Amino acid sequence: MLLKAMMQPIKELLLFLLLAIFTKATGMRPPHSRSASDSQQSISFCLSWRLAVEANNVRAWRTVPTQCLRYIETYMIGGQYDRDVELIVEQILSYVNEIVVSDDGMDAWILDVDDTCISNVFYYRGKRYGCDPYDPSGFKAWALKGGCPSIPAMLVLFNKLVEGGFKIILVTGRDEATFGEVTRENLRNQGFSGYEKLIMRSESDRGKSAVAYKSGIRKQLMEEGYRIWGNVGDQWSDLQGEYVGNRTFKIPNPMYFVP
Amino acid sequence: MLLKAMMQPIKELLLFLLLAIFTKATGMRPPHSRSASDSQQSISFCLSWRLAVEANNVRAWRTVPTQCLRYIETYMIGGQYDRDVELIVEQILSYVNEIVVSDDGMDAWILDVDDTCISNVFYYRGKRYGCDPYDPSGFKAWALKGGCPSIPAMLVLFNKLVEGGFKIILVTGRDEATFGEVTRENLRNQGFSGYEKLIMRSESDRGKSAVAYKSGIRKQLMEEGYRIWGNVGDQWSDLQGEYVGNRTFKIPNPMYFVP
Repeated sequence: MLLKAMMQPIKELLLFLLLAIFTKATGMRPPHSRSASDSQQSISFCLSWRLAVEANNVRAWRTVPTQCLRYIETYMIGGQYDRDVELIVEQILSYVNEIVVSDDGMDAWILDVDDTCISNVFYYRGKRYGCDPYDPSGFKAWALKGGCPSIPAMLVLFNKLVEGGFKIILVTGRDEATFGEVTRENLRNQGFSGYEKLIMRSESDRGKSAVAYKSGIRKQLMEEGYRIWGNVGDQWSDLQGEYVGNRTFKIPNPMYFVP
Repeated sequence: MLLKAMMQPIKELLLFLLLAIFTKATGMRPPHSRSASDSQQSISFCLSWRLAVEANNVRAWRTVPTQCLRYIETYMIGGQYDRDVELIVEQILSYVNEIVVSDDGMDAWILDVDDTCISNVFYYRGKRYGCDPYDPSGFKAWALKGGCPSIPAMLVLFNKLVEGGFKIILVTGRDEATFGEVTRENLRNQGFSGYEKLIMRSESDRGKSAVAYKSGIRKQLMEEGYRIWGNVGDQWSDLQGEYVGNRTFKIPNPMYFVP
């Protein structure tokens, strides 16, 4: 499955190139050339779409464009997503190296949980990588298994921040009553230990938008005296609103949008 | 030149594919395989870098990584940049269609000028697409020619906004005393006419950061009663700070960073 997905764009490109050579050599339009050229156009469109999502130009989108299913699959599991996260983590670490950590224990980083520390990509594989609409009960069943794998580069970052003397505050939109225990266990079984606290939605947070909920949490942290050096999330709603932190970092997520 | 740049990645991919087939068929590592695999790695890195720039994860960068010279050239003049801008303009227009324009003439859009309305890509070609550091006197000489071409999709947007009854306020970091006349002429000769005003740096704005200067301008516009529905720029410093507008849109620019 994974290998097949990785080979697919290479196959498409090979087809495209052979057709290009054929056309150039013969000056003819080869039979069925439309499908290869369509495929090339589709890759180009999906790259534009993904860029626009990451730059926050496309907002409130409900599903991935169907024509981008294979493109997003290849992106997520073919290596480019991992490299994108690695480059961001390098940027974060070079910023971290400039910070002088105080000994009052109030130097903090805020990290989101889903698709920032731990990954839902295997769940979204069953949802056509976001081409299918959001399915709350399906996601609940998945999250209750506690089997989200770590995002490797983010685990490296997490550990370096802990070693560097920062207090890591995990802030998630997950509901405490439903997901409290399993989320703590999932983080633990993936190696995320040594964080200051995990903040989840309480009953009074239900129905709040992510921006309002997370801004409120950050405001409270600032009032407690924390200095928020950085804030890392896969959704723009993690990084916008108030008290966003001294620097924000957007981890890619072309599979879903949280308003 | 242009065709050569467009063919380069196809050539590289063809080489890569032939080597992949050779290796697979023979089980051998072909001679010189490193260069093709290096090239593939380099494309992957440059894509990560460009994404991170557009998502505002990489900041205050001085030059484009040298290994990305050819990649950025292909991106800028090979078609993908144009398609990226077109997709953003589609997003802007679908947002614009939801706005009910009032008849008081105070519904405004803010557009940046350089590499938002008109392009400096031909200047940057001579600066290795940003691999060379910023050259103020070189850029001054270029801008004084008044020969920046329009960015086609942005000209379409501009005209639709004017037709739709919006007041377009162009806000640029260019200096009024030096570039006032030539900038007006360049905009005119590229078809940008019917805007409300062009705001440029006055003597008192010199030395201000782009964020401080542009925030100050927007504050004043709000005080004059304008409703800033949207704000479009190629730099995050166009879109951050205060009174940023109801929606912001980031046009790609992997060639330079304005702090």
